[in-house]
Amino acid sequence: MPPTYAFTYRIEVRFRDCDSLRHVNNAVYFTYFEQARLVMGETLGLRRTLEEVGLGLILAHTSCDYKAQLVFGDQIDVRVGVDTIGRSSFTYCMEARRVRDGEVVALSRSVQVVFDYAAQKTAPIPDTFREKLEALVSGSSIGS
Amino acid sequence: MPPTYAFTYRIEVRFRDCDSLRHVNNAVYFTYFEQARLVMGETLGLRRTLEEVGLGLILAHTSCDYKAQLVFGDQIDVRVGVDTIGRSSFTYCMEARRVRDGEVVALSRSVQVVFDYAAQKTAPIPDTFREKLEALVSGSSIGS
Amino acid sequence: MPPTYAFTYRIEVRFRDCDSLRHVNNAVYFTYFEQARLVMGETLGLRRTLEEVGLGLILAHTSCDYKAQLVFGDQIDVRVGVDTIGRSSFTYCMEARRVRDGEVVALSRSVQVVFDYAAQKTAPIPDTFREKLEALVSGSSIGS
Amino acid sequence: MPPTYAFTYRIEVRFRDCDSLRHVNNAVYFTYFEQARLVMGETLGLRRTLEEVGLGLILAHTSCDYKAQLVFGDQIDVRVGVDTIGRSSFTYCMEARRVRDGEVVALSRSVQVVFDYAAQKTAPIPDTFREKLEALVSGSSIGS
Repeated sequence: MPPTYAFTYRIEVRFRDCDSLRHVNNAVYFTYFEQARLVMGETLGLRRTLEEVGLGLILAHTSCDYKAQLVFGDQIDVRVGVDTIGRSSFTYCMEARRVRDGEVVALSRSVQVVFDYAAQKTAPIPDTFREKLEALVSGSSIGS
Repeated sequence: MPPTYAFTYRIEVRFRDCDSLRHVNNAVYFTYFEQARLVMGETLGLRRTLEEVGLGLILAHTSCDYKAQLVFGDQIDVRVGVDTIGRSSFTYCMEARRVRDGEVVALSRSVQVVFDYAAQKTAPIPDTFREKLEALVSGSSIGS
Repeated sequence: MPPTYAFTYRIEVRFRDCDSLRHVNNAVYFTYFEQARLVMGETLGLRRTLEEVGLGLILAHTSCDYKAQLVFGDQIDVRVGVDTIGRSSFTYCMEARRVRDGEVVALSRSVQVVFDYAAQKTAPIPDTFREKLEALVSGSSIGS
Repeated sequence: MPPTYAFTYRIEVRFRDCDSLRHVNNAVYFTYFEQARLVMGETLGLRRTLEEVGLGLILAHTSCDYKAQLVFGDQIDVRVGVDTIGRSSFTYCMEARRVRDGEVVALSRSVQVVFDYAAQKTAPIPDTFREKLEALVSGSSIGS
C-alpha cells in the first residue's frame, strides 16, 4: 500500500538550485523536503504544539532516492506524511512529483527526535503532539 | 522619476535562504534577482534572441541596497526593468517588494555584457536584441 | 569492523552553511560529502577512467545520520571509502569528523550507478574502473 | 593608489558553488566575501568589541565587479581592507585573487551600519571600535 500523504506544497526550481550538470543538485532535494516539512509544521501547528511544552525537534536521519532529474523551470509538488511514531522519535515519508508530467522525481524519509533544550536531552513525544502526528498517519489529505 | 519595471516575478523565501541571524542572508538576494532576470529572459525570448546569433550574456557587475529584512514565510515580488543600454552592455534595475506589506526590501542593479563565446570576446548588442531591450525601457508592465 | 576510508578531505564550515538554528543545515552535509567524493574522484583519476570509455556516474541514493552539531568556525575531516561493488552500481561510505575534538558528527552513504550518456541507460562497471574501486575497498589510506 | 588590505583568507571553491555555466555563480562571491569579513571580525576581535557595548552591524549595501571566472578546483585568497569610516557606518573593500595564477577575479565593497538592537536604531561608531577600524585603514597586513 502506498503511503498516504497529509500535506502538499509546491516549489519552484531556481537556477541556483542547479549544478554544473544542468540539473538540480542532490543536496538541494533535502532543502525542498525541509521546506515542505517546515511549512506543514507551521500550517498544522506542529511546531507550536511542541514549543508550548518547551520542546523542539532534532533531525537524526535523512535519506533520498533519486528517480528523475529536475531542471530550471520545473515545479514540484512535495508531499509529506507521517510513517512511524516511536517513543521519542517519528518518521516522515516524503515524495517530490514534477508538476509538468506528474512523475515522481524523488522519495525521502527523515527521522525526527523530540528534544528538551533546557535539559539538553531527548524527551518522550508529548500526548498533544502525538495526537497531531497520529491524525497525519491516518492521513486525511490537506492542501497547502 | 522612479524606474519603470517591465516584469514581475513572485518568490517564496525558503528556510534555507535564512542565516544565523534568522533573516534572509545578503547573498541570497542576488539569487532572487538572478531568478527574476532569468525567468524574464525565458518568458520574453531574450535569451533565445541572443542564442540565435551565437551570443550570450556575461555578468560584469551587481549591487544591492538592503532596505528591510525578510524572514522564513515571506514572499516577495521582484520587478525587473532595463535602465541604460550601451554599445555592448546594458543595465537592469530591480526591486524586491515584500508581499505582506508592500514594503521595498531591496534594490539592485546588474550590468550584463554581450559575449561571443566562439570568439571569446565581447560583442556589440545585435539589433534584434536591442529592440527587445528598448521595449523594456519604455516599460509596458508585463506580469509573470 | 569499522569501515576503512581511502581518502580524507578537510572542509571549513562557512557562515552561509548555517541556518536559523545557528548550526550547519542538514542539507549542507550532503554538499560536504559530495565535495569530498568529487575531489577524491579527481585526485585518484576515477572520473577520468570512466570518461575515457564514455561513461559517467548518476547518484541513485544518499543518506545521512546526524551525530553532533557543527557551527561557524568548525573544520571537518571527511573520509570516503568504498563499501560494496555491484554489477553496475557501488556504494560509498563517508564520515565527517570535527577537527577540534575528533568527534564524528555525521555518517553518510551514497549509491552511484554507472551511466552511458550516449545510450541514455545504465551500464556495467567497466573493468578499469572496477580495479580502482576495489583498491579503495581494501583501503590503503590516501591523504588529500 | 591601490587599497591596502588588512586581512587575507583562503577559500576553496566547492562543486556546489558552481552553476549550470560550470563556473562559480555570481551570488556565491558574496558568500566568499562575507566569510572573509566574518573570519576577520572574529580574528581581530571586531565583533566582540561591538558586542561588549551592546551593538552589532547591519549590511546596507554590497557590490561586486566580476573580472574572471572561477571553477571547481580553484582556490582564492580574499583580502579585506577598510576604505572609509563615517559617523555610524564604514566601508570594506575586498578583493578575490585566484591562487593558481594570482589573477584578480572579483572586487567588492560593502557598507556596514552600527546598530543598537535594544533601541532598534542605528548608532554612532563607538570609540573602541573606531580605533580598531582605523588601524585597518592604515593597513599593516595580517594573515589569517
